[in-house]
Amino acid sequence: MSSAESYAFLKGHGTENDFVLLPDPDGSVHGELSAERVRALCDRRAGIGGDGVLRVIRTTAVGEAGAGQTEADGGAEWFMDYRNADGSISEMCGNGIRVFGRHLAQAGLADPAGPVPVATRDGVKVLTFAGGEVDGEITVDMGVPRVLADTSVSVGDRTWPAVHVDMGNPHAVAFLDEGSDLADVGPLLEAPEHDAAVYPAGVNVEFVLRRAPGHVAMRVHERGSGETRACGTGACAVMVAAALADEAARDTSYRVDLPGGTLHISWTVDDRIMMTGPAVVLAEGVTRL
Amino acid sequence: MSSAESYAFLKGHGTENDFVLLPDPDGSVHGELSAERVRALCDRRAGIGGDGVLRVIRTTAVGEAGAGQTEADGGAEWFMDYRNADGSISEMCGNGIRVFGRHLAQAGLADPAGPVPVATRDGVKVLTFAGGEVDGEITVDMGVPRVLADTSVSVGDRTWPAVHVDMGNPHAVAFLDEGSDLADVGPLLEAPEHDAAVYPAGVNVEFVLRRAPGHVAMRVHERGSGETRACGTGACAVMVAAALADEAARDTSYRVDLPGGTLHISWTVDDRIMMTGPAVVLAEGVTRL
Repeated sequence: MSSAESYAFLKGHGTENDFVLLPDPDGSVHGELSAERVRALCDRRAGIGGDGVLRVIRTTAVGEAGAGQTEADGGAEWFMDYRNADGSISEMCGNGIRVFGRHLAQAGLADPAGPVPVATRDGVKVLTFAGGEVDGEITVDMGVPRVLADTSVSVGDRTWPAVHVDMGNPHAVAFLDEGSDLADVGPLLEAPEHDAAVYPAGVNVEFVLRRAPGHVAMRVHERGSGETRACGTGACAVMVAAALADEAARDTSYRVDLPGGTLHISWTVDDRIMMTGPAVVLAEGVTRL
Repeated sequence: MSSAESYAFLKGHGTENDFVLLPDPDGSVHGELSAERVRALCDRRAGIGGDGVLRVIRTTAVGEAGAGQTEADGGAEWFMDYRNADGSISEMCGNGIRVFGRHLAQAGLADPAGPVPVATRDGVKVLTFAGGEVDGEITVDMGVPRVLADTSVSVGDRTWPAVHVDMGNPHAVAFLDEGSDLADVGPLLEAPEHDAAVYPAGVNVEFVLRRAPGHVAMRVHERGSGETRACGTGACAVMVAAALADEAARDTSYRVDLPGGTLHISWTVDDRIMMTGPAVVLAEGVTRL
């Protein structure tokens, strides 16, 4: 590669939701970070490839985005500047923030022994590392779920009752009949229909199969993306719907299998959803995209 | 990223046919290079992502693969150890070898001022760099085409006459009617049918539209892969079929537009096909996949 205008990147994934990370501690490398550059980086043929970009920037350097980050917000030193692959700005990503945290710990930018607060456009999220280890599974406090009215999803002439769970973004969780095979669900995830009155901005749809008590498997259709290998908020919504159906007490935990890997989701006594899962930084280097 | 067992890689593409390059001059980094590692590297979510891997290894280090590389073979210093994304071994890749050559020139491993011979499992291929420049478009001598009997391809109840051109691998080139729109061809490329007696090992199918004299556009279905953004041998086969249909004299050149970019293909007076196109190395770094 020629070296003109090259800059650092890393690539990582959480349950196969993958990201290009851009170290930019003081914001001087990328400045405004153009949508064009984000699209070039996320291009899976002509770029590095990813579902999104995570710029790693100090809260003090974010400018407008950093305003309001104070000790009361958790004293977060780092801001996750998340962009979708199409270049648009996004608030938060449950798989992305684990990858973000993994990089902070591996690069010595945060101490995995204690809680690591990370500022996002959806507020400060607190990460904890299993065993306090750099490479331990990472738990994210995903906040308080909102369970709304029952709804339904349809594909062709088939309809499933669904639970409407809001995890900051909207989900419709539909349980499949016992004996169903998730391998057959693919066509259902191409263009599931929903009630536009309930979900005016569209909805993420999850089809769920029970595996055992406290253990479910799912596939997900993300609005705007189609089927994906994993959706962090979707897994949380599924856990909430399953726990409600099971009339489980708070302080309960479910294993949620997704095509891209496994997450463990807990619902705490103080009504918060904690998501635990893997995160891998698999490459680092320089590019001039 | 943690540094245990990390090794160098680069990522590049030619007309959006993309590759992970592995510098391994004396073969000591990767040894046999397992199919498992190739699949991990080419995984587009959990890996770096690519259509294949190009190991950059000296001919003297290849062992069995290097046997027979002598001055008479072109004195090639470097061997392109090409693997498909599924881990299988492949002979040659017209887009890959340009990316391979770009890396050699940028890394100072070959001199772009003169012809650069590169050993492959399909023999030594000679690259030339436009203007003798490191970043010039690269021309590959793709050898002598074999034009075989007319054949046909079918999709559902529609059938197109097709020209059978062998560029080391088999192609069926079908011309679309004037006024057709390549944007509508997608469904035709999902599972085109061919004469199994003509193509016992399957075939790559190209649908072609004439743009102007000496200028065609194409889309391609590669056997085993489905539609791809570009196919170097496919573009050569298309040029051969077009030149034959046009009764063009030798020493003629065609522009071939593919979804991933543009190639220029010449048919020389001594019956060789020369393919000229872009090649980009867009990132370099380390991984421990």
